[in-house]
Amino acid sequence: MEILESHVIWEDKWRVRVNTVRLADGANHKRAVIDHPGAVVLAPLVTTESGAPALLMVRQYRLALGTTLFELPAGTRDPGEPWLQCAQRELREETGFRAAEMTPLGEIWPAPGFTNERMALFLATGLTPDPLPMDIDEDIVVETWPLAELAAMAIDGRLEDAKSVVAILRAAHHLSQ
Amino acid sequence: MEILESHVIWEDKWRVRVNTVRLADGANHKRAVIDHPGAVVLAPLVTTESGAPALLMVRQYRLALGTTLFELPAGTRDPGEPWLQCAQRELREETGFRAAEMTPLGEIWPAPGFTNERMALFLATGLTPDPLPMDIDEDIVVETWPLAELAAMAIDGRLEDAKSVVAILRAAHHLSQ
Repeated sequence: MEILESHVIWEDKWRVRVNTVRLADGANHKRAVIDHPGAVVLAPLVTTESGAPALLMVRQYRLALGTTLFELPAGTRDPGEPWLQCAQRELREETGFRAAEMTPLGEIWPAPGFTNERMALFLATGLTPDPLPMDIDEDIVVETWPLAELAAMAIDGRLEDAKSVVAILRAAHHLSQ
Repeated sequence: MEILESHVIWEDKWRVRVNTVRLADGANHKRAVIDHPGAVVLAPLVTTESGAPALLMVRQYRLALGTTLFELPAGTRDPGEPWLQCAQRELREETGFRAAEMTPLGEIWPAPGFTNERMALFLATGLTPDPLPMDIDEDIVVETWPLAELAAMAIDGRLEDAKSVVAILRAAHHLSQ
């Protein structure tokens, strides 16, 4: 698909780019895409009071949905920010903890139909308190959930946030090995 | 979060909406969101030559990525289109088959940080040939892959398309019960 012209019509943390492309009918069409700097997704490992493996989850207001979503801590990468630095910063901002170790759980394209956003997933272990202030946009409550329950919710459909489903199932698999 | 004003700056299959919101600092800020009609994701069940369960996968050029992605068949819902009708239409367009049965595998938010897109996932079974012409945008190759191999790729990170990871792991779980 040949891009004949491209211009940006909106820019904030991400950009809306309108491309003029030549399609199979031989004519020119305009197609918008979202240029995105990428994001990190954290699976912060803790234990329940009874000692079972658990993750820190957040309930966060999402403007695009007009409601609060139950999801793993996550956040947008600053332009040029190294992925691991971004992971540590977002973990500190959203949960108040720093991780001794970040184990990669792969990377995903959340919505390749219209954005080049890439999400890097990490299992965050060895948590110690080291908070950073939250973004002005953020309205977040942190909760501890047993990993086994989260994995069941991810596979049976109760969990609806795609990045959380992927990271939880990969974390559970990694820890079971 | 109070929305004070909202207007659309781009409209195609989805819209870019710029909202003026009052944030925690008491000031007004502009935040863009993507208004999206939703999409379907299909896990079309077939068998390998040796009789093992398999899914139809597609390799599709993605303008936003500038490359071809390995993913399950999927597509955007027409405005007001019933979800099951959309699922059957996209299956016929992208694979050339109709399904006797569509079993829901839940719904997901692929990118709630900036879009209200909702994806409905289906296990498509009882496939018979019944093709529809593809969209003018689409450049697709269909391949048959063993479900066990896809599930391994989804969990170990080789598969990078988030919706495909979720639908494949849910399909494998559903079929194992």
